[in-house]
Amino acid sequence: MDLLIVGTVAYDAIESPYGKTDKILGGAATYIGLAAAKLGVTSSIVSVVGEDFEKNHLDLLTSNKIAINGIEIIKGGETFFWKGKYHNDMNFRDTLETRLNVLENFSPKIPKENTSPSIVMLGNLSPSVQLEALQQLTPKPKLTVLDTMNFWIENTLNDLLNTIKNVDVLIINDEELRLLTNETKINKGAKKIQEMGPKTVIIKRGEYGSVLFNENETFILPAMLLDKVVDPTGAGDSFAGGFVGYLTKSKDLSFNNLKTALVYATIAASFCVQEFGTEGLTNTSLADFENRLNEFKKLTQY
Amino acid sequence: MDLLIVGTVAYDAIESPYGKTDKILGGAATYIGLAAAKLGVTSSIVSVVGEDFEKNHLDLLTSNKIAINGIEIIKGGETFFWKGKYHNDMNFRDTLETRLNVLENFSPKIPKENTSPSIVMLGNLSPSVQLEALQQLTPKPKLTVLDTMNFWIENTLNDLLNTIKNVDVLIINDEELRLLTNETKINKGAKKIQEMGPKTVIIKRGEYGSVLFNENETFILPAMLLDKVVDPTGAGDSFAGGFVGYLTKSKDLSFNNLKTALVYATIAASFCVQEFGTEGLTNTSLADFENRLNEFKKLTQY
Repeated sequence: MDLLIVGTVAYDAIESPYGKTDKILGGAATYIGLAAAKLGVTSSIVSVVGEDFEKNHLDLLTSNKIAINGIEIIKGGETFFWKGKYHNDMNFRDTLETRLNVLENFSPKIPKENTSPSIVMLGNLSPSVQLEALQQLTPKPKLTVLDTMNFWIENTLNDLLNTIKNVDVLIINDEELRLLTNETKINKGAKKIQEMGPKTVIIKRGEYGSVLFNENETFILPAMLLDKVVDPTGAGDSFAGGFVGYLTKSKDLSFNNLKTALVYATIAASFCVQEFGTEGLTNTSLADFENRLNEFKKLTQY
Repeated sequence: MDLLIVGTVAYDAIESPYGKTDKILGGAATYIGLAAAKLGVTSSIVSVVGEDFEKNHLDLLTSNKIAINGIEIIKGGETFFWKGKYHNDMNFRDTLETRLNVLENFSPKIPKENTSPSIVMLGNLSPSVQLEALQQLTPKPKLTVLDTMNFWIENTLNDLLNTIKNVDVLIINDEELRLLTNETKINKGAKKIQEMGPKTVIIKRGEYGSVLFNENETFILPAMLLDKVVDPTGAGDSFAGGFVGYLTKSKDLSFNNLKTALVYATIAASFCVQEFGTEGLTNTSLADFENRLNEFKKLTQY
């Protein structure tokens, strides 16, 4: 199987109780691709950046086996930029600045050689853009996975529902689930999502873990316990990247294998948050990853 | 092994989004004993009630193999009464009324035949009363387990620290941990507790589950997913009761067995919250309990 990722490639500036950064590499597609790369999975990103996007960042992607021929570079344009601040309770953050820049008119163009991936991961983006990308894929991928956020639920609900109809897996957090379904109990909320289209629903619960719902099966998984969280940016994207990365690698969409993919997702997210930006992922070796997988199994299995 | 429970036997009046009750049976020791009884474990309660305490409630305890010879009945006294209201977010509750009544001057008297239990569970009570009970036990029990709450951390910290020094297992929730240790990361908080005395620390995380810390080992367990929670009163006590009940029954204090005890604790709490008061536990058959244990294993193991 091969993996196509549609999503942002961006610059971020981040403040947290552990320090602050200048402009650093970010973006949903970046984290997804880097997390998948941890599992040795080759992927292609479809995105847009400005002329300011640095060559060494493109090189970082390609050195992680991420094809960049689907990343459009807009001449004279500037890359999407987000600046945010985390407080002691890392569950909350303030957005200090958002410059959409080249993202404002983003119309995804899937390179011809990438229009028939086995798995497509639609990272957090406008749902109409996500759908536009999906419609260029033929034949239908074996698995379509969608991430979204509160902004789209609150501002473009109809577009979102229209896109959700066409995907196999929705990944959202518990607050977004409540916003989208009006249910506080996640098993009830997940059922409502399933009626909207996706057979599989994954609810992220931040530091508490995640829950995977299939038609008749459920799997509850805690998160890794960490001594410190330096920067939660990209945690959800790394989670998604670990999930689709494992499925791409293992070529098996059974429920049992989805469960294992959720474990990989959890471990990818746990590395992401331990350093600023993408460094948590890029500084992780395959051996680190395997060691934590084993440790996590001991921590959670009886 | 045999189990001694020190704690309140009380009356509660509860309001929740699912309805309201008149005075019903409650109290930490009651829930602990009933949860242990689900596992077929015989126990003794040391507590105090007033003359108003109904015979049918004493009968309910004895029919659940709970010895009541340690429950002092104060002539002319009234039983401890608590009235509370839960809102849609069941994590928060308002106390509408608290009448300490006979609890105000409670001085626990352990019946002679119960002074050498294998396991003692000190339910939520004033820490000086908990210590007073503990000092009557000889020889030292194989395992001493303590529950407490924010009120004692905020108002009688020195007494609490003095009692904590003498116990093997502390069970508290994540907010209480933060209050007691000033740590937001539970693994750091648990280490601080271990320096205070207890080798084993269990952190309850409400609907998200619990984490068990031993000297060098950790176990993270999610909670059962439920379609509805009718009344959370007694959930923590039922959790404690399931934990000590399983250890009493299995006579094994290894870390592996503590892990299994945490699973039993989780299942006991899950039944407790599904009905008002003690009915969630009393309406549960052993078969229900075993079925949910199996279901929970499928939900959480990979």
